[in-house]
Amino acid sequence: MKRREFFKSASVATIGAAAATTLAAPAIAQGNINWRMVTTWPKNFPGLGVGAQRLADRITKASGGRLTIEVFAANEMVPPLQALDAVIDGSAEMSHGAAYYWQNKSQGLSFFTGVPYGMTSRELAAWVRYLGGQEIWDEIYDQFGVQGFLSGDTGTQAGGWFRNELTGIKDIEGLRFRTPGLGGQVWSKLGATVTNMAAGDIFAALQSGTLDAAEFVGPYNDLALGFYQVAKNYYFPSFVEPGLATELAVNKSKLLELPEDLQELVKVCAQASYDDVSSDMYANDPRALQALVSEHDVMVRRFPDEILEAGAKAAMELIGEIRDSGDALTKKTAESFVTNLNLLRTRTEGTDMPFLAAREKYISYK
Amino acid sequence: MKRREFFKSASVATIGAAAATTLAAPAIAQGNINWRMVTTWPKNFPGLGVGAQRLADRITKASGGRLTIEVFAANEMVPPLQALDAVIDGSAEMSHGAAYYWQNKSQGLSFFTGVPYGMTSRELAAWVRYLGGQEIWDEIYDQFGVQGFLSGDTGTQAGGWFRNELTGIKDIEGLRFRTPGLGGQVWSKLGATVTNMAAGDIFAALQSGTLDAAEFVGPYNDLALGFYQVAKNYYFPSFVEPGLATELAVNKSKLLELPEDLQELVKVCAQASYDDVSSDMYANDPRALQALVSEHDVMVRRFPDEILEAGAKAAMELIGEIRDSGDALTKKTAESFVTNLNLLRTRTEGTDMPFLAAREKYISYK
Repeated sequence: MKRREFFKSASVATIGAAAATTLAAPAIAQGNINWRMVTTWPKNFPGLGVGAQRLADRITKASGGRLTIEVFAANEMVPPLQALDAVIDGSAEMSHGAAYYWQNKSQGLSFFTGVPYGMTSRELAAWVRYLGGQEIWDEIYDQFGVQGFLSGDTGTQAGGWFRNELTGIKDIEGLRFRTPGLGGQVWSKLGATVTNMAAGDIFAALQSGTLDAAEFVGPYNDLALGFYQVAKNYYFPSFVEPGLATELAVNKSKLLELPEDLQELVKVCAQASYDDVSSDMYANDPRALQALVSEHDVMVRRFPDEILEAGAKAAMELIGEIRDSGDALTKKTAESFVTNLNLLRTRTEGTDMPFLAAREKYISYK
Repeated sequence: MKRREFFKSASVATIGAAAATTLAAPAIAQGNINWRMVTTWPKNFPGLGVGAQRLADRITKASGGRLTIEVFAANEMVPPLQALDAVIDGSAEMSHGAAYYWQNKSQGLSFFTGVPYGMTSRELAAWVRYLGGQEIWDEIYDQFGVQGFLSGDTGTQAGGWFRNELTGIKDIEGLRFRTPGLGGQVWSKLGATVTNMAAGDIFAALQSGTLDAAEFVGPYNDLALGFYQVAKNYYFPSFVEPGLATELAVNKSKLLELPEDLQELVKVCAQASYDDVSSDMYANDPRALQALVSEHDVMVRRFPDEILEAGAKAAMELIGEIRDSGDALTKKTAESFVTNLNLLRTRTEGTDMPFLAAREKYISYK
């Protein structure tokens, strides 16, 4: 999901109104530092927007109010896709969004959110924290005076809502599919007519037949949007979005001006948030999916193998195109990502998957 | 792995010597709080012992030295399996170990580390943080005046080192296997002659033929112990240890005496550490396994299906026995664990696994 269009339909508050909602922070004393976190999420957006607010609250609380973070939802201070620019120009100290929103600054940033057929959330964290990913990310963002940190992950997303069942690759030709970003580029290579539109417009477009299919995030987020009323076929998994990380981006000179303990606190809170959001999504997705199936007659389906296979071919092509797009840092990022994906897959495929397959086959608790 | 025996061979330092290694903390001012963290790990134990030290250092650093944590390796202050007792009696404020070491206090504690054929690390965090697990854990530990927090996870472990290849369940009868804890109980049900012994003694026992097989953790930890020299068959995965979490246990009245910001800081650092240790293990296991295979001629093998199936039957029996062991809180814990495992599996099996299977089948980056 690329959320550009979604935000256009999100409610817009004035800066003044937002400023009036300043956090209650009874422990605040003189000399405290007040920071603004602009986000790309609508207020109370499940998992991600809520996660940004919780991260801000934890920094405020764990610093005893010495570093107080005020959160601005999309459009409260700046439009969602200007969040990073606000951090770069210093009008906000932090943004909470996804690194791939800024791929116009560097294509390499896509890899720190997630790419088609790429890393899972656990693999991504291993690469970023212990296999050199953070250092490359820093190198990219140093050009803009910001630093990025992982701050959450959706886990593997749903593949989308389809009005009709897919019997094979032939059904994709000309399929009018709302699916933005790199995932959209993969589906486009498969023959779909890829469209982007605001989340608030998807429902009507599916209902009228202007759209044949749409994908957003996963059950936890999708349930609220009501797509199940007009498209009953819910496909899994999203092979183009195997784990999408959110980022906390911080103005680097502002970060370095903080006392060392608060610098460390920002980093540790972001890392805790990565686990927190992942856990929230993992716990709530299956509950939402149960509601969709049992209360709303949704048909849960898997993509036919030939679509998965063609999608893989398209994804490999796309990653190759990004790697060779001409920017040296993007090439370095893509090469590190692929090398480490190959390494981490040996663990996922040699240890995790055989365990999961055995548990699936042999364990049944009543 | 249950580490009781391992520690007997770990080097023992006197309390005086350990105290002399007090952390350098230049930012410490008057009125700071000094806490002791006793651990169940040998000094510099990869992933876990190192993770405990990093967690302590982060609390110290992110509090600007207001809360300074000194770490004691196993036997430096108390023997490893007295770590929780030291927290209960207040001679240490924190311990870092694994909740299932204290199953003599409550069988239910096993579930907060991991059980045979149980939850993965991601599922465990979802249960503990968002599906009621922490509340039950608190109820158990309230009886002892402590509070437990997830602080790391090994991920799915290796199944063990075997002198001979396993062709089927018949090869397990009488097999002298070093594998402690609940995993050992499962292997015992399968016919193995289960033994426990110190990690430092395993090598010689495998070499002399006193042992036919042994399991410890996974490649990152096992490489250093040299088992590959005397047993070449390295089996995956450990169906009895699908993800073992470490815990940070804190004396609850000491925790509540802290200012609120430091209470929050302890919690947020533990949560960040859960991601940190998981990432460390995930990044370093495959590198260690590559070294074992390419430099030490280790044969990586998978357990035959009939062993996986019999192991599942034994694990379900064992969980049932624990649930029905007579303690009401243990019953409540086991029931919550099983209910939520059933829920979370729908996500793992419906979304994560089909993605991973498609990636394994169709993606190959050169």
